[in-house]
Amino acid sequence: MPIVQADALRGFITDIFEASGASREEAAIVGNHLVEANLMGHDSHGIVRTLGYIQQTKDGGLVPAAPIEVIGGKGAAAVVDVNWNFGQVGATRAMEIAIERAREHGLGAAVCRNCGHIGRIGAYGQMAAAAGMIGIACVNNPGTTGLVAPFGGAKGRMGTNPFTFTIPTDNPDEPFVLDFATSVAAEGKVRVARNKGVEMPDDYLIDSNGNPTNNPADLYQNESGERGALLPFGGVVGYKAYGLAVAVEALSGALSGSGTAGGDRAGGNGVFMLAIDIPAFTERGEFDELFGGLEDHVTQPPFREGQEVLTAGEPERRRMAQRLADGIDVDEETWRQVCEGGALVGVAPLEV
Amino acid sequence: MPIVQADALRGFITDIFEASGASREEAAIVGNHLVEANLMGHDSHGIVRTLGYIQQTKDGGLVPAAPIEVIGGKGAAAVVDVNWNFGQVGATRAMEIAIERAREHGLGAAVCRNCGHIGRIGAYGQMAAAAGMIGIACVNNPGTTGLVAPFGGAKGRMGTNPFTFTIPTDNPDEPFVLDFATSVAAEGKVRVARNKGVEMPDDYLIDSNGNPTNNPADLYQNESGERGALLPFGGVVGYKAYGLAVAVEALSGALSGSGTAGGDRAGGNGVFMLAIDIPAFTERGEFDELFGGLEDHVTQPPFREGQEVLTAGEPERRRMAQRLADGIDVDEETWRQVCEGGALVGVAPLEV
Repeated sequence: MPIVQADALRGFITDIFEASGASREEAAIVGNHLVEANLMGHDSHGIVRTLGYIQQTKDGGLVPAAPIEVIGGKGAAAVVDVNWNFGQVGATRAMEIAIERAREHGLGAAVCRNCGHIGRIGAYGQMAAAAGMIGIACVNNPGTTGLVAPFGGAKGRMGTNPFTFTIPTDNPDEPFVLDFATSVAAEGKVRVARNKGVEMPDDYLIDSNGNPTNNPADLYQNESGERGALLPFGGVVGYKAYGLAVAVEALSGALSGSGTAGGDRAGGNGVFMLAIDIPAFTERGEFDELFGGLEDHVTQPPFREGQEVLTAGEPERRRMAQRLADGIDVDEETWRQVCEGGALVGVAPLEV
Repeated sequence: MPIVQADALRGFITDIFEASGASREEAAIVGNHLVEANLMGHDSHGIVRTLGYIQQTKDGGLVPAAPIEVIGGKGAAAVVDVNWNFGQVGATRAMEIAIERAREHGLGAAVCRNCGHIGRIGAYGQMAAAAGMIGIACVNNPGTTGLVAPFGGAKGRMGTNPFTFTIPTDNPDEPFVLDFATSVAAEGKVRVARNKGVEMPDDYLIDSNGNPTNNPADLYQNESGERGALLPFGGVVGYKAYGLAVAVEALSGALSGSGTAGGDRAGGNGVFMLAIDIPAFTERGEFDELFGGLEDHVTQPPFREGQEVLTAGEPERRRMAQRLADGIDVDEETWRQVCEGGALVGVAPLEV
């Protein structure tokens, strides 16, 4: 299995996106984003996406170097047309705009339309935290016919519709970064279980008839062309996460004009980003004292047997420290695909 | 069991709060809020609160007719000091301010400090929806030492920290109103189960040693003075709702200056309210078309056996139609307490 150092990998992936037509700066936004996801242990949002993005630049689904324009909005609100530039480039610009607006008005929000896949949503919350702001963001899949079932439904209807809530703390290296799918898991986890031949836990999946199943293969198309669905998280109270997924459709899909699940407008991600400037409400020192006290309060012992209480973002920081030191282990198939993406735009494979 | 008509009940409860020192208008805000909660079937947030509020006016915890002042903020952001007026009065004013700010800036947010118990949080989201805006709000319990355990923790550390996400639709009578505790259930459900002598489902409770339990009595103080805790919702992925509960502490507790769980500043509710003005982003007709299409998409059949897919707010509208027609059934003990609250301020019992 290839072990790749983060610095070398960032350069390699950036080279690929630059060769696809992006400026060095915009290529680095995509490359750094994908490698950071791997460093954090979220491999499903990492360099495994490279080939797909490059294929989209070939078929016109993505347009490297397309201009990113503010086409609407008012005061604290901005509508950003990404014109099918890379999602990471558009979403990064959108959060920058939300932060600028928040600096002026106390709050700022930006929505994106015509925007590619933006990757790991927590990354944009981290931008707000780095600017001393609270970040809230969510993303939908316009036009999807469904991977995740609504509570009580027998068929998938929406995407995994993730949310981030990111809070700065008195330590700039340790923001609170909550980043979660409103489904019980991402599709990637089910795919891994299927490939390993292991069962899924209860309350994750239904089969194509809407019955509970532990068989990961039931999520995928069967011989009759039907497939199962992931459930919203929460089990018997899954109506809560189902409701959150619908709220994501309103904020990211309808408010942005990108489109909602099941609709005609399809492709990429609908995006909603919100930045909240803490000093507009209260002194930063007071905020840090109150929120720091809360983090100490909730993470103190006693813990349940074999468990501990972490703050959101801590598992990712632990994994990142390890992968920065030891290198990133990339499976053979993912590495083959990354190099195939490079070959499509004339970039020679990185020696590993 | 007393059956009370909504109109008569509103008048009676309003009379009680007026007699406690509130203006007729502010008393009606509290009375109407509590009765609406009963109409919707959320009895735990309804008239059962009357006696407690009245007792607080006697011991100084609540100050009827106290001035509600904007003491800080900037642009789209406002800090509201409720000066211990009733929480419903303060939170209603705060959402009005958030809506005014959003009308001007596209977004508006208000936080409340020195604010009593605000009741059912969805009510404030409904105000935003009635103004044609998306409403997001959450509330914490400053200083609480804990009812709900963090994910992995053996002891309760936070309150039930509820959130609302409210979306207007093309039918003003049918907004999307998501209103959920980040815990698996409100404490009231456990109390009811204990009183009935029935078990709780799995993944709701831990006992005072942090072990899973189905016995509702384990939530409450035992002979050694220890108690169990409610869990965040989500079971094995309960870290998601635990994270949301922490985000509520940041928004409602720290940003407002009210205080966070486990801290020195205690009492009442910390409140965060956000209004998002749709026309600042996109035409209302287009928004309604996209969001209406989504609601049709997710609520269509097929359903899981014995279930259906509802939109958030629909169960409450069904219950409200029934209770408006048939009257509100109030249990004897609750009715006795309501009348006791009236007696404390010299209001004669309503004949039922």
